[in-house]
Amino acid sequence: MSSTVLPNFVSGQWQRGSGDGTPLFDPVRGDELVRVDATGLDLPAAFAFARDVGGAALRAMSYAQRAAALGEVVKVLQANREAYYEISTANSGTVKNDTAMDVDGGIFTLGLYAKLGAGLGDRHFLLDGDLARLGKDPLFQSQHILSPRRGVALFINAFNFPSWGLWEKAAPALLSGMPIIVKPATATAWLTQRMVEDVVKAGVLPEGALSVICGSNAGLLEQLQPFDVVSFTGSAATAALVRSHPTVVRHSVRTNIEADSVNSALLLPGHEADSGAFDLLVKEVAREMTIKSGQKCTAIRRIFVPQAVYDAAAQAIGTRLAKTTVGDPRNETVRMGAVVSRAQKQHVIQGVAELRSAAHVLFDGTASSLIDADADSCCVTPTLLGAHDASAPVLHDVEVFGPVATLMPYTDLAQAQALIRRGQGSLVASVYGEDPAALAAAALELAPSHGRVHVLSPDVATMNTGHGNVMPQSLHGGPGRAGGGEELGGLRALNFYHQRSAVQAATPVLTAMG
Amino acid sequence: MSSTVLPNFVSGQWQRGSGDGTPLFDPVRGDELVRVDATGLDLPAAFAFARDVGGAALRAMSYAQRAAALGEVVKVLQANREAYYEISTANSGTVKNDTAMDVDGGIFTLGLYAKLGAGLGDRHFLLDGDLARLGKDPLFQSQHILSPRRGVALFINAFNFPSWGLWEKAAPALLSGMPIIVKPATATAWLTQRMVEDVVKAGVLPEGALSVICGSNAGLLEQLQPFDVVSFTGSAATAALVRSHPTVVRHSVRTNIEADSVNSALLLPGHEADSGAFDLLVKEVAREMTIKSGQKCTAIRRIFVPQAVYDAAAQAIGTRLAKTTVGDPRNETVRMGAVVSRAQKQHVIQGVAELRSAAHVLFDGTASSLIDADADSCCVTPTLLGAHDASAPVLHDVEVFGPVATLMPYTDLAQAQALIRRGQGSLVASVYGEDPAALAAAALELAPSHGRVHVLSPDVATMNTGHGNVMPQSLHGGPGRAGGGEELGGLRALNFYHQRSAVQAATPVLTAMG
Repeated sequence: MSSTVLPNFVSGQWQRGSGDGTPLFDPVRGDELVRVDATGLDLPAAFAFARDVGGAALRAMSYAQRAAALGEVVKVLQANREAYYEISTANSGTVKNDTAMDVDGGIFTLGLYAKLGAGLGDRHFLLDGDLARLGKDPLFQSQHILSPRRGVALFINAFNFPSWGLWEKAAPALLSGMPIIVKPATATAWLTQRMVEDVVKAGVLPEGALSVICGSNAGLLEQLQPFDVVSFTGSAATAALVRSHPTVVRHSVRTNIEADSVNSALLLPGHEADSGAFDLLVKEVAREMTIKSGQKCTAIRRIFVPQAVYDAAAQAIGTRLAKTTVGDPRNETVRMGAVVSRAQKQHVIQGVAELRSAAHVLFDGTASSLIDADADSCCVTPTLLGAHDASAPVLHDVEVFGPVATLMPYTDLAQAQALIRRGQGSLVASVYGEDPAALAAAALELAPSHGRVHVLSPDVATMNTGHGNVMPQSLHGGPGRAGGGEELGGLRALNFYHQRSAVQAATPVLTAMG
Repeated sequence: MSSTVLPNFVSGQWQRGSGDGTPLFDPVRGDELVRVDATGLDLPAAFAFARDVGGAALRAMSYAQRAAALGEVVKVLQANREAYYEISTANSGTVKNDTAMDVDGGIFTLGLYAKLGAGLGDRHFLLDGDLARLGKDPLFQSQHILSPRRGVALFINAFNFPSWGLWEKAAPALLSGMPIIVKPATATAWLTQRMVEDVVKAGVLPEGALSVICGSNAGLLEQLQPFDVVSFTGSAATAALVRSHPTVVRHSVRTNIEADSVNSALLLPGHEADSGAFDLLVKEVAREMTIKSGQKCTAIRRIFVPQAVYDAAAQAIGTRLAKTTVGDPRNETVRMGAVVSRAQKQHVIQGVAELRSAAHVLFDGTASSLIDADADSCCVTPTLLGAHDASAPVLHDVEVFGPVATLMPYTDLAQAQALIRRGQGSLVASVYGEDPAALAAAALELAPSHGRVHVLSPDVATMNTGHGNVMPQSLHGGPGRAGGGEELGGLRALNFYHQRSAVQAATPVLTAMG
C-alpha cells in the first residue's frame, strides 16, 4: 500500500493532485514516508488568488503589522518544533544539530525580520534616500521610494533546507507585503508542507499570503507576470532554465538565483602548524565538510594553505574527520547522518571520481563502519582530497554536494587569491590569520568575487558564527557561478520585493506622501 | 565612391574592420555620411585588454581621482561640442534643442557624477550601511562593502541617444572603476565614435578604460565572463536575446535592460479645460510627442483624461501639434527634424496603422508640408490618436517610437490607474493636478509599476524638468515590459558596477579595512 499523499494549499484550499504521487523516503532506512503530487492543480487560479487576495490583504497592513504577523508565525513554528525534528530525522536523515540549523535557523531568521520590521513602523512604503533638488529652486525635487511589488513571489527551493530555505525568503517577502507560493524540492518537501499547514491552520497570516505546491515544477514559471518575482535555489543547469525561460524573459520577471558555489578557505602566509590560525582552519574545515553531510551551498570545497603546512593540514583535518561517526541519526553517538537520496549519494560518488582525475585521497572515511545503517543506505563518509598542483580546472569547477573538499598548497598569496577567483564567483570565502591588517587586505581582495568573506582570528574563535552558517544580518549570495543573487543582509533583503521609483514633484506633494 | 570607414578603438589601438562597412545616412537629405565595420576584430583580445589593463588602472585610482578624470572628459567634450552638433544634425536629423538633449545632456550627466564622485574621496571601495553585531559580543561583526567589479562593462546602445546613452552609463561605470566597451547602434554610431576618439586622443582616461566597436553585435556577448556586466537599450525582442544568451545565462552576467515602455500621462479628476493642470498636460504632451521626433523611450504614449475634458484635450493638443514645423533641422524655422532612418519611418507608419485598429485619428500632421525636405526623407509628422474605448490590448502594448500618442478618456480614477498598469511596467508616468494630497496619492498608486513618477502642478510649472527628460539625480528604468533595469538615481547607479559583500570579522579587522 502506498503512503499518504500530502495536500497542496492553493487558492485558499487544501487540494490533492489527481495523480498517484511521488514517494518521499527515509534516506537511512529506505522506508517510503509520504507522497506528493501537484497534478491537475489550477495554477492560473492559484497564482491569481495569491496575487489578488493575498497581495491586497498584505499591502493593506503596515510594515509593523506584517512584522507582528511574522512574530505569530514564529510562535506557531516553535509550538510544533518537535514534529519538525521528527520529520527532518526521517526525511532528511539529519542529526539534531543539522536539523537545528534548518528548523531553528528558519525560526531565528523569521524572528530577526519580525524585530527589524517592527522598527519600520506604521508605513505602507519606504523612503529610499533623501530629497534631491532638480534645479536651483528647492520647490521641485526628487524623492526615491520603495513600494511593495504588486505580484506574487514564487520560491522554487532546494532539498537541503526545507525549513530555512522557505523562511529566510518568506520573512522578507511577507514583511514587504508580497504573497508567497513555495514549491519545495520533492525529496524533502514534507517538512515545508507541514510547516505551511501549521501556519495556515493557525490563521496568523491573511488568506492568500502563503501557498504551497508539492511535486512537479511543470507549469509554474508559465504563470509569472511582470510584477512577480521568482527565487530559485538549486543546480546551475536548472538555474539556466529558469533564467532563460520564455515567460521570465518576456516579462522581465525579477529573478534571484543561487546556484553552484565552490567556496574556499584560505590560511594566510606565515602561519605554522602550531599556530592558532592553523588550528581554526582545521576545525572549521572539518566542521564545514560534515555539517548536513556537506549538503550546504556555503560549505568549504577548496582549502588553500601555504606549501609549508600542506602535509600538516592534511594530517590534522584527516584526524578530525576520522572522529566523525556516520550512520542513523536516531543513534545519539552518530555525528553525521545521510545525504538526502540515492541520487545525491550517486552524485557524491561521481563527483569524487571526477576530482580524483586531478587530486589524490588524503583521508578516506569509508574505513570506519556505519552505525545502525548499511551500505545500501544514503550514508556517505567524508573524503578529503589533495592536489599538489592546483592548476586543473576540475578542482575549481566541480561542486561535490557532500562531505568532500580538496586541499591545495600555494606558494604566494597572490597565487592563492587568483586560484580562489577561478571559482568564478562564490557565496563565501573564509580567511584565517592573526594580523588585522593582513586579514583586512585579504578580505578586500576576495570581496569582489564573493557575497561574503568570513574572517577568523583567534580573538574571535569563541564567537565564530561559522563559515557556512548564513546569518540573516549578512548578505547571502554571490556573483557569477554562485548565481548572482542577493538574499538577507538585514533590511537589504526587502529590496528584491519592492519597486524603487523616483517621484519628482513639488515639495508639498512629497511632504503629503508622508 | 563609398565614404570613410570609421576605425574602432580596441586593445589600445585604432583598428579598421576588414569588411566594406555599413553606410550611415543623413535621414533628411539621404546622403551617405560615413561607414562602420567591425569585421575581423580580435574580440577576445579586446575584452581581455579592457578587463586587465583598463580595469587594473581604473581600480588603482581612488573614487576622487576617477571623478577628476570624468571632469577632464567633460572639458574634452565641451571643447569639441560644435563638431558633435554638426554630426548630430547630419546623422540624426535633429534640431538644436534635440541635439542639446543628447550632447549637453550627456555632458551634464558626466558633470554630476564628477561632482558626486569627488565627495566619495580617497577610497577604493565603499561602505554599505553600518556595522551589525553577529552575537552578543560586539567584537565579532558584519560590515557590508561595495567593491568595484573586476570585469568589463559592455554597453549595447540605442540609436536615439548616441551621446547621452553612452555617457549616462559611462559616468557611473568609470567612477566605479570599471572599463567600458561601447557598441553604439549602427544608424547613429558616428557621434559615439567621434566622442570616444576625442576622449582617447586627449589622454584623460587610463589606457584600456574606454573602447568603441562600431558595426555588428556579432560575437560580443560571447566574450562576457562572470564579473562583467552588460547594459542593453533597445527593442524588447533583442533584449530577450541578450537576457537569454547562453553566455549571459551560464555566467550569471549582470544585466541591465531598458526595453519598450508605453508611458502614460494622467490628468487627475475634477480639472476642467480652463484649469492650470489641464494646460500643463496639454503643453507637456505636445512637447513630449515631438522632442526628438518622439524617439525617446520615456516619451508619453498614452494620455488619460477625465471623460468630460476628452474633446477639449484632443482639440488643445492638436492645436499645439499643428504649430510644430517639420523638416530639415538646418532651417531655423523647423521645430522637429527627422526620425533616424527609413526603417524607423516605416516602423512609425506601421505602428500607427496597428493602433488605428482600436483608435481614430484626432490630429494628423501630414496636412502641413515639410520644410526643406521631401516625402522621400525620414521626416514624420505628428499624429494624435484617440480611443473612446480604452479596452483594446493594442493601445497598451504597442510602443510607436515616433511622434505618436493615444488619448483615452476615463470615468473614475481607479479605472485610469488600472489602465495605466496595463502597460505592464513603464519607465515613467506623469500626473497633472493641483491638490498636493491627491497628487501624492496618485503618485504612490503608480509608483509600483514605474521607475519614475513625474508630478506636475501649476506651482512648479516653471521648474518642470520634463516628463521624458532623464535627470541623473533620479532613477531611470522600469519594471516588467520596460526591462526591469535601474540606471542613474545619483550614487545608486554605482551599485550595478560594484559587488556587494558582507565581511564578517573581528572589529579590529573591520577597522583595518578602513
